[in-house]
Amino acid sequence: MLEYEHLVRKWLKENQTKGIKLLQLLVQENSTRGKESSAQAIMIEKCRQLGLQLDIWEIDHNELVRHPLFFCDRKDFNGNPNVVAVLKGTGDGRSLILNGHIDVVPVGDEQNWKRDPFSGHIEAGKLYGRGSTDMKGGTVALLLALEAIIQSGIHLKGDVLFQSVIEEESGGAGTLATVLKGYRADGAIIPEPTNMKIFPKQQGSMWFRIHVKGKSAHGGTRYEGVSAIEKSMMVVQRLAELEKERNQRITDPLYEKIPIPIPINVGKLKSGNWPSSVPDEAVIEGRMGVAPDETMESAQKEMENCLAQLSKYDSWFLENPPFVEWFGARWLPGNIEEDHPLQKILSESFRDVKKEDPIIEASPWGTDGGILSNVGNIPVVVFGPGITELAHDANEHIVLEEMLQASEIIALTIMRWCEPAK
Amino acid sequence: MLEYEHLVRKWLKENQTKGIKLLQLLVQENSTRGKESSAQAIMIEKCRQLGLQLDIWEIDHNELVRHPLFFCDRKDFNGNPNVVAVLKGTGDGRSLILNGHIDVVPVGDEQNWKRDPFSGHIEAGKLYGRGSTDMKGGTVALLLALEAIIQSGIHLKGDVLFQSVIEEESGGAGTLATVLKGYRADGAIIPEPTNMKIFPKQQGSMWFRIHVKGKSAHGGTRYEGVSAIEKSMMVVQRLAELEKERNQRITDPLYEKIPIPIPINVGKLKSGNWPSSVPDEAVIEGRMGVAPDETMESAQKEMENCLAQLSKYDSWFLENPPFVEWFGARWLPGNIEEDHPLQKILSESFRDVKKEDPIIEASPWGTDGGILSNVGNIPVVVFGPGITELAHDANEHIVLEEMLQASEIIALTIMRWCEPAK
Repeated sequence: MLEYEHLVRKWLKENQTKGIKLLQLLVQENSTRGKESSAQAIMIEKCRQLGLQLDIWEIDHNELVRHPLFFCDRKDFNGNPNVVAVLKGTGDGRSLILNGHIDVVPVGDEQNWKRDPFSGHIEAGKLYGRGSTDMKGGTVALLLALEAIIQSGIHLKGDVLFQSVIEEESGGAGTLATVLKGYRADGAIIPEPTNMKIFPKQQGSMWFRIHVKGKSAHGGTRYEGVSAIEKSMMVVQRLAELEKERNQRITDPLYEKIPIPIPINVGKLKSGNWPSSVPDEAVIEGRMGVAPDETMESAQKEMENCLAQLSKYDSWFLENPPFVEWFGARWLPGNIEEDHPLQKILSESFRDVKKEDPIIEASPWGTDGGILSNVGNIPVVVFGPGITELAHDANEHIVLEEMLQASEIIALTIMRWCEPAK
Repeated sequence: MLEYEHLVRKWLKENQTKGIKLLQLLVQENSTRGKESSAQAIMIEKCRQLGLQLDIWEIDHNELVRHPLFFCDRKDFNGNPNVVAVLKGTGDGRSLILNGHIDVVPVGDEQNWKRDPFSGHIEAGKLYGRGSTDMKGGTVALLLALEAIIQSGIHLKGDVLFQSVIEEESGGAGTLATVLKGYRADGAIIPEPTNMKIFPKQQGSMWFRIHVKGKSAHGGTRYEGVSAIEKSMMVVQRLAELEKERNQRITDPLYEKIPIPIPINVGKLKSGNWPSSVPDEAVIEGRMGVAPDETMESAQKEMENCLAQLSKYDSWFLENPPFVEWFGARWLPGNIEEDHPLQKILSESFRDVKKEDPIIEASPWGTDGGILSNVGNIPVVVFGPGITELAHDANEHIVLEEMLQASEIIALTIMRWCEPAK
């Protein structure tokens, strides 16, 4: 290992507490959708301290709405900016985007949390709170890596573009805005929670909303009505069968160890507004996984056909076919060659730090990488320290040791990709 | 038929338009929960015109909350009064309560309505709108009957207590308040929509809320979570089996023609708050029918036992048992002897007007009659002109001819029960 690499790793070992404190501060700021501003303020101040060139702007809905890949049901971005902070290189080097999202998903049922979901509590080497794993821990790993390089006095040839974006959890409007603003690079790393696995391929996904009809009646004579809840149970059942069919077709060895490579998740079901009435409508919302080699359109078609077949099982659906909307969020699938230099450098850096081979898999979810690669034509690798299973779960936490290791691996990768200037 | 009875029936025949207009006005006032005031204002003005002794008051939550039969999740009754209007008798006669509720259930999905749900539109002898059948039509039948008697110059021995109450659809706090305020009588008629059948027995019912647990996870790795929607489908399934078991035990011949004498209606299901997350909680709300000879407590126990058995089918429920709350509304079952004089007089009056025998059945739902009989010890018969199947449904309407016939039948019943003074 080269001398400057030693220096950087030494700095990281000596400044672990700094990184942990930054993560704690970030987790303590609730940055669910529409409330990203105070967590972004921490990011902005950190980038200012590092002397990065800051670009802070509010997404202009009117401008983005014309883009065919803008799938977003949010109209008001006021006060919750996107942030890009650039470490300018000396020139003639490969540039690199380091992309993390600041938004976190809702906490769900708070009763399932042992502590305040935004506690940032640390215990036995783990830091707890919504966003710790998905993905403030990954973002802190990026910032620590950058800080170590800067503090070690190393100048790079290529530019490094640190991005703290909003809206990843709702379909990537934040990252789309960065690409449309002209931010491109020769490669990108997104430290989503991969359990320290490297994901050269990412599952795409999109949201669906299915409307199921019933016929209302008084609950005391419920036999006069048709329950939209009962009918929606048949729809959910049918979606489970479709998921099975679609997954039987996946043969990519990168998916070998993944129980359901492209899941269909039913995330919401809402029906009825009165306990004593037979509900006349149900609305199902969920997320459909899309294989890396599949188009969004063909996946949509498949679900629409599947729902159309429901009338074979129940004649109610003949007159009252369920109606599917493709709304809100959409993540494009991603895909880079397995022998791409960025993938190779990252794997090598992993080996140097962890003294073992990385696990290379296909990701079980879409990331903003789909936008970077499909819209910006930027090769993307997804790799990060968070715990995949805990993303979106109660008692979400991160193993701090892994965050710090990821930081070292990313620091090495940045230097090997962007190259130190002489 | 007696001379004064002829007079009253003649008045009713000549003043049909008056009744229809009153109903239209009432239906056009949306009186869903919390918004009862403007429909009550019409009632109050009508009672004033009839010269009745008016008692208009707002329910005092603090006073009622101590009563063991106050099952109500509403705290604010400000501005939405209960109304009792008394036609004082000359004395020594049997008194009669005429009870109608002013509240209506929500309209559900407006798209299912051919017209504005509060249109009061009249077509082919039917008047359309939420509340037309349940039960503003019945209430208008009561008022028309009273008006006919008064306008025909007939004085009665017994008192007639006309009651326009709130909160029937949510468990009867309005009627409970009348009883607790001291309003009692020797009998009561409630013109809920019975399709002109006479119901000496009423099904009781109560609301339940079942909490079902899941385990959240990211939708892309949904196999790491446990879907509360999937688990709640098992609960709904189990409730259907319980309903079957309970109904097999019903042998009362009055229930012979009712497909499901004591239904368990699942009226609401709500689960999840993010399409890309596995939902960790589902809440099911519904209405459980209670047989006339059953106690509320034994029915509750049966459901609780049934849910406890779920763990036999799925070990998830062992660690995460569904939890049932008995919340909000509750209607006590009702029951009078088949040879009770009020039942006999009503049947006789029915025969005189309709020239056919009435159908006598057990009601498929609870009414405020449960409170009148259980708390006030008042014998209650439920009989009214609305269409049972349309209560709580879209495009609710009433056949005006039946409302007018009901009015004649009720006018005769009032006079035969309370007796004209010499």
